[in-house]
Amino acid sequence: MEHPENSEAYKGLVVNKGIEQPSSVNPYLKRKPKKRLLSAAEFVEGIVKGDITILSQAVTLVESVKPDHQVIAQEVIEKCLPYSGDSIRIGISGVPGAGKSTSIDVFGLHVLEKGGKLAVLAIDPSSERSKGSILGDKTRMEQLAVHPNSFIRPSPSAGSLGGVARKTRETIILCEAAGFNKIFVETVGVGQSEIAVHSMVDFFLLIQLAGTGDELQGIKRGIMEMADGIVINKADGDNLERAKLAATQFRNALHLFPLPDSGWAPKVMTYSGFYNIGVKEVWDMVYEYIDFVKDNGYFEYRRNEQSKFWMYESINEQLRDSFYNNPQVEALLREREQQVLQGNLTSFVAAKSLLDTYFEDLKK
Amino acid sequence: MEHPENSEAYKGLVVNKGIEQPSSVNPYLKRKPKKRLLSAAEFVEGIVKGDITILSQAVTLVESVKPDHQVIAQEVIEKCLPYSGDSIRIGISGVPGAGKSTSIDVFGLHVLEKGGKLAVLAIDPSSERSKGSILGDKTRMEQLAVHPNSFIRPSPSAGSLGGVARKTRETIILCEAAGFNKIFVETVGVGQSEIAVHSMVDFFLLIQLAGTGDELQGIKRGIMEMADGIVINKADGDNLERAKLAATQFRNALHLFPLPDSGWAPKVMTYSGFYNIGVKEVWDMVYEYIDFVKDNGYFEYRRNEQSKFWMYESINEQLRDSFYNNPQVEALLREREQQVLQGNLTSFVAAKSLLDTYFEDLKK
Repeated sequence: MEHPENSEAYKGLVVNKGIEQPSSVNPYLKRKPKKRLLSAAEFVEGIVKGDITILSQAVTLVESVKPDHQVIAQEVIEKCLPYSGDSIRIGISGVPGAGKSTSIDVFGLHVLEKGGKLAVLAIDPSSERSKGSILGDKTRMEQLAVHPNSFIRPSPSAGSLGGVARKTRETIILCEAAGFNKIFVETVGVGQSEIAVHSMVDFFLLIQLAGTGDELQGIKRGIMEMADGIVINKADGDNLERAKLAATQFRNALHLFPLPDSGWAPKVMTYSGFYNIGVKEVWDMVYEYIDFVKDNGYFEYRRNEQSKFWMYESINEQLRDSFYNNPQVEALLREREQQVLQGNLTSFVAAKSLLDTYFEDLKK
Repeated sequence: MEHPENSEAYKGLVVNKGIEQPSSVNPYLKRKPKKRLLSAAEFVEGIVKGDITILSQAVTLVESVKPDHQVIAQEVIEKCLPYSGDSIRIGISGVPGAGKSTSIDVFGLHVLEKGGKLAVLAIDPSSERSKGSILGDKTRMEQLAVHPNSFIRPSPSAGSLGGVARKTRETIILCEAAGFNKIFVETVGVGQSEIAVHSMVDFFLLIQLAGTGDELQGIKRGIMEMADGIVINKADGDNLERAKLAATQFRNALHLFPLPDSGWAPKVMTYSGFYNIGVKEVWDMVYEYIDFVKDNGYFEYRRNEQSKFWMYESINEQLRDSFYNNPQVEALLREREQQVLQGNLTSFVAAKSLLDTYFEDLKK
């Protein structure tokens, strides 16, 4: 609009009309209204239909830290529960460099040859720091990434291991409700996360490398004993003999351990992910195990134990959170710890004084 | 006294004189009045002087479940803390039948040859049921039992593992304050108690037997990986070759594990407790380890970590006790667990509902 001062007709005093103020609202938002969050029922309907977009959105909701998102997420998970469970869940672990991504790519394709759908999830509590070292780069699973029947989802971003593990466990439920009947849960063989993965899968597969021992140093103590199967990767070319030797060593070592509760003696095999050698044999073993534990009742027993475990784990974690995040406790904790370290207070008396502080504060 | 009716002299009606009623109070109690409980200061004075009777009484107090006993016990422990710590603490584990008692007998005598004083304690949370399977029968340690510089104390009687372990840990403090500079903590190689023992000792010795594998089935998974030394007992006579073979197998197996945080590669040796062969070599290894970790700082680091561990362990255990013993929680727990098992409730929602109940009840 032309300013009145510029008008030919009027030369006198004017009161400026003012310029049009820019909108304080982003105009693009007007044209593209914020997508309405689906209702829990709509999520469930979409998931059960196998709608991958809705499944992805639901998983994002599960991973969200917003309380209102969590309310819907929990409702969705609960309504998906009756549709879940009909799957085999495989934990896959191995140190960085063991060739996990390549292996999961060929393992996944092999598993999908039989039909069905495969979800590949991950647990890596360090994923924020390492910017998605696990599954962050889908291109490392070239073939699975473009397969119509696969769903690949990186680890929920960092938080406590308990929190990350819970989200992955809940994502398993959603994936199963969406018809995914094979679940891979990947983790990196360097810590506590193996225990979490072990507590949510039916079979725990440990990928190892042949080596003089140095390569094995990356595997934390106790992990080998959780494995239902140990597979030595890169059993090809010049490395074949070394891989076979490593397999023998692992077999001998496993003989020193007692039989696991499943009654299944863990097997050791060699394969090559890169050259796709021995992959069928590895999976024949996994299927043999599943048949074995379904026959002897351990499969169902273990799933029940896992559900209970997660309930108690969740309780214990939240009890600890409530205590250690209590401001009164936080203010006193380091002091008490120092007194214990300096030998001025017994561990028990220090603990008791902190607990008294906590319970008194809760009553307020 | 002859009954009057049987008397020759008198034939008529008689009123029985009546017999003397037994006292309703135990007469011995009158002569031996109940011993006055020592004050905390008197306990500490006696302990620091090395008075074994007073030490024993203090340990009994530590083991007592009476609240007023616990108050004194905690004061005694706290006052003994500055006198404690100057010792080496050795955990000794092995399945029943491995010859632990005989071994501890000869190990103890060997250790005492260097001078000093030895306390042999135990952790066996099942001790009430099995009526003191561990150390219950001191005669199994014939020589130590009568040695003037040894103090043998069976496992505190049954309770939660955490409770039993805490009492043993507190007993270590009292023993050290009484001048015991070598502490053995025995446990049976079949469960969680190894982890507790491992968290209160400087060196963890695992006694094994040569065998085809069947004998090894008694050792729970994960225990082998805690050992700083594995010693094969009964390496004598016909069994010598088998023991040597077993040692080789264990050595190979241990190579597959990463080096522990101590930087010490666990050693495997053979010996015969019964024939007292190789006992010196076993203890040379233990002393070598102690020198090694004192040099590299791990000894002190680990003791500090253990003190912190016990503070946090004590906190977590009491948090759990408070929750699971809450009547409102107890009334609801099975129901929620069943709902989880039947797939009607997610583990997380079940946990949350129980926690809400608990925290609401605490506020009352």
